[in-house]
Amino acid sequence: MPLKPLDYESLNDNVKKVAYAVRGELYLRASELQKEGKKIIFTNVGNPHALGQRPLTFPRQVVSLCQAPFLLVDPNVELIFPADAIARAKYYLSLTSGGLGAYSDSRGLPGIRKEVAEFIERRDGYPSDPELIFLTDGASKGVMQMLNAIIRNDRDGILVPVPQYPLYSATISLYGGSLVPYYLDEERNWGLDLNNLRQSVAAARAKGITVRAMVIINPGNPTGQCLSEANLRDILLFCYKENIVLFADEVYQQNIYQDERPFLSARKILLDMGPPISKEVQLVSFHTVSKGYWGECGQRGGYFEMTNLPPQTVDEIYKIASISLSPNVPGQIFLGLMVNPPKPGDISYLKFSSESKAILDSMRRRARVMTDGFNSCKNVVCNFTEGAMYSFPQICLPPKAIEAAKKASKAPDVFYCLKLLESTGISTVPGSGFGQKDGVFHLRTTILPAEEEMPAIMASFKKFNDEFMEQYGGYKGYSRI
Amino acid sequence: MPLKPLDYESLNDNVKKVAYAVRGELYLRASELQKEGKKIIFTNVGNPHALGQRPLTFPRQVVSLCQAPFLLVDPNVELIFPADAIARAKYYLSLTSGGLGAYSDSRGLPGIRKEVAEFIERRDGYPSDPELIFLTDGASKGVMQMLNAIIRNDRDGILVPVPQYPLYSATISLYGGSLVPYYLDEERNWGLDLNNLRQSVAAARAKGITVRAMVIINPGNPTGQCLSEANLRDILLFCYKENIVLFADEVYQQNIYQDERPFLSARKILLDMGPPISKEVQLVSFHTVSKGYWGECGQRGGYFEMTNLPPQTVDEIYKIASISLSPNVPGQIFLGLMVNPPKPGDISYLKFSSESKAILDSMRRRARVMTDGFNSCKNVVCNFTEGAMYSFPQICLPPKAIEAAKKASKAPDVFYCLKLLESTGISTVPGSGFGQKDGVFHLRTTILPAEEEMPAIMASFKKFNDEFMEQYGGYKGYSRI
Repeated sequence: MPLKPLDYESLNDNVKKVAYAVRGELYLRASELQKEGKKIIFTNVGNPHALGQRPLTFPRQVVSLCQAPFLLVDPNVELIFPADAIARAKYYLSLTSGGLGAYSDSRGLPGIRKEVAEFIERRDGYPSDPELIFLTDGASKGVMQMLNAIIRNDRDGILVPVPQYPLYSATISLYGGSLVPYYLDEERNWGLDLNNLRQSVAAARAKGITVRAMVIINPGNPTGQCLSEANLRDILLFCYKENIVLFADEVYQQNIYQDERPFLSARKILLDMGPPISKEVQLVSFHTVSKGYWGECGQRGGYFEMTNLPPQTVDEIYKIASISLSPNVPGQIFLGLMVNPPKPGDISYLKFSSESKAILDSMRRRARVMTDGFNSCKNVVCNFTEGAMYSFPQICLPPKAIEAAKKASKAPDVFYCLKLLESTGISTVPGSGFGQKDGVFHLRTTILPAEEEMPAIMASFKKFNDEFMEQYGGYKGYSRI
Repeated sequence: MPLKPLDYESLNDNVKKVAYAVRGELYLRASELQKEGKKIIFTNVGNPHALGQRPLTFPRQVVSLCQAPFLLVDPNVELIFPADAIARAKYYLSLTSGGLGAYSDSRGLPGIRKEVAEFIERRDGYPSDPELIFLTDGASKGVMQMLNAIIRNDRDGILVPVPQYPLYSATISLYGGSLVPYYLDEERNWGLDLNNLRQSVAAARAKGITVRAMVIINPGNPTGQCLSEANLRDILLFCYKENIVLFADEVYQQNIYQDERPFLSARKILLDMGPPISKEVQLVSFHTVSKGYWGECGQRGGYFEMTNLPPQTVDEIYKIASISLSPNVPGQIFLGLMVNPPKPGDISYLKFSSESKAILDSMRRRARVMTDGFNSCKNVVCNFTEGAMYSFPQICLPPKAIEAAKKASKAPDVFYCLKLLESTGISTVPGSGFGQKDGVFHLRTTILPAEEEMPAIMASFKKFNDEFMEQYGGYKGYSRI
């Protein structure tokens, strides 16, 4: 029998090369165990509602009304919806050309892009142009669009932090580019080391790779650090000098759990730096409704903003967006609500702000509980989660455990995470899915389990871990970073 | 100044090569005119709600409730929502792992994929496996995923009908493959001619191209024909003999406006043919909530079903889907509702069925009015719209018009469509966006303008057209096909 075009062997090699650990072996095994009736704590994906976080009421009211425009003329509607939600729903419907069932412009509804631009201006102190903001089905889709536009062949390199969120490595493989890693420094709370960055670029160039873009994830995923202003300035200066585009993944900008390093957008720092840098560095920034205290992952709403891209390029990006016609319209409305939430004085303001504060305060406490919990475990060391939604502890595996993993034909961290899953139901992602230095092992978990369950989860983790370390020989004297 | 990575000149060439006419020059000009205050009739995209079609009430009630789960415990909810919508919303929420705000599995919610499989079984008379059904953000996204998986390089060819829906040409360019055209026969109501198909494949092979897949659009877009059972058998036999995958774009399967040729799915015919063909031909079928009498374009819900694909390939497709985490969950619920609508006896059944029948009956009348309207115009000839949502009249342009177009540096059909737009506000897509034989010109318009406006629109078209033909010399004796 000849091979058929959709047999595995005859697929596009780039598709086969893609690795995507967040929903990889661990996730599949967890799903199996769940089917068999085991209680699984899915901490593999930043998916807050799946772990019990309740949606914010006001945005849900607005979108619910937009889905059912007949309610807006129902005399009973005010019995169950507040007046400001009703007004807001009418406003959003007026921005569409036929309600939520009509395709919008492929860049998203102009009225919502205007709300996004106003949000960016308030945040950064510089005006933003709605024509340079495109709405997307979640931030990932925007990242994929931009990487597709910039990658020409396997000699085009994209600088990606290691450890990194595998969206980047997967998409770079899929579009046939080269990932150029730069290493975050675990010993300095996952800070970015400019010397390392320069070495990475030099090494890539020596191999004939043109470094075209650099990805930063701020706050970091999976690493949880927040970039300082000085760090951002260094990065932008570097991009300017080296003629590299900056892709700023800022989807966790509302998730900050300390006061020393507030979120600063790459765009604000770029514009603060003034000409020529502010006029020259090409920057694309990404944001989403899936994170923050919203956690509306399933709605798939996001945007990207382009700075210093020439109009002809923007037209090309628009053309490609047009192929799939329009991002989903309900997701666009969530995005509008996120960038333009209820204001003091609005009927729903107090409820909205108390709901969002409660979520964020709880995340802040959970970040602390989780970091402390990991640091209380044998052979585990963990930086504090300054921002984002993840904890990324280093697991110092004893040689016997590494040997046992080899016998089981598993990477050592995969071996550990599988044992953890089977024993406790905690579904994590092995560090190898994000990249890590040779011989150093991690896992990623979200900080999202319900706060009241957190002590039990950490106790269950500790029990598993300490027994595991016992079983495989403890390995005293492993130097903690 | 050196080129920067996101300057136009340094973008991915495949991105630049993409042409996408549905939202091309005509659409951009129409948008400008609309901004200037001109009334535009957007018939460039099959976007029913944008032209006044009202959403079906029941599905909107269900999704509205799913967005606002707090309503389900509100004592007043039964004042404004029927009991079956409430029950259905509770059912769908029970299928999620945290409501609409949680990512689903990257293939979509298992419970909804099961509903799709049951729908397919009822439709075709053969069981369908939910594990081989993936939900997507609209059908286009699924088509893009499959083309990305199958195209390896520019020697991989995809057979595409001409005229075609430009999703295919655009995506094939974007992923660097080769489009292999096969021509539909306008004189035989856009029927598929197997000899032409064979010639196309032979010509492509002579150029060193491996023909890997064939796209059929049934009912046709932009051409409106429905494929007969005999035609489908021929196509499947051809795919079997030639080792070609079949991509069946069946998004218009509910849009049928005659009784001679009901919709038959490629999958049903394949399975009817029995082994070895039924076990061998690799088939991927696409469907959506954007078309039919639903027209829920803005919700971005769709699915694809894979037949005879090996499990390892299905795993690869799953892995790629995982990169963008999950299709939007509200769109998945619309899809569930589409494949499992209210049944006789349900509270909402009568309303649902009268709403959907009214929409479909009206489309059927509009298909007739539009075809007849075009055929009453000077130098215009148009096949009847048997299905889908489009009319694709041939416009026999006089030599003087072709000359005038050349002077204006426009393709002749673009020239005509721009004049039509400026003069009447009717926004169409020139036939060149879909492909047509050399020297033959068309335009595509949807049949979607409100029924009561249709006579005025067709009168306005006729007035423009007949004056245009007068102005450019009439050209009597042009042979009508």
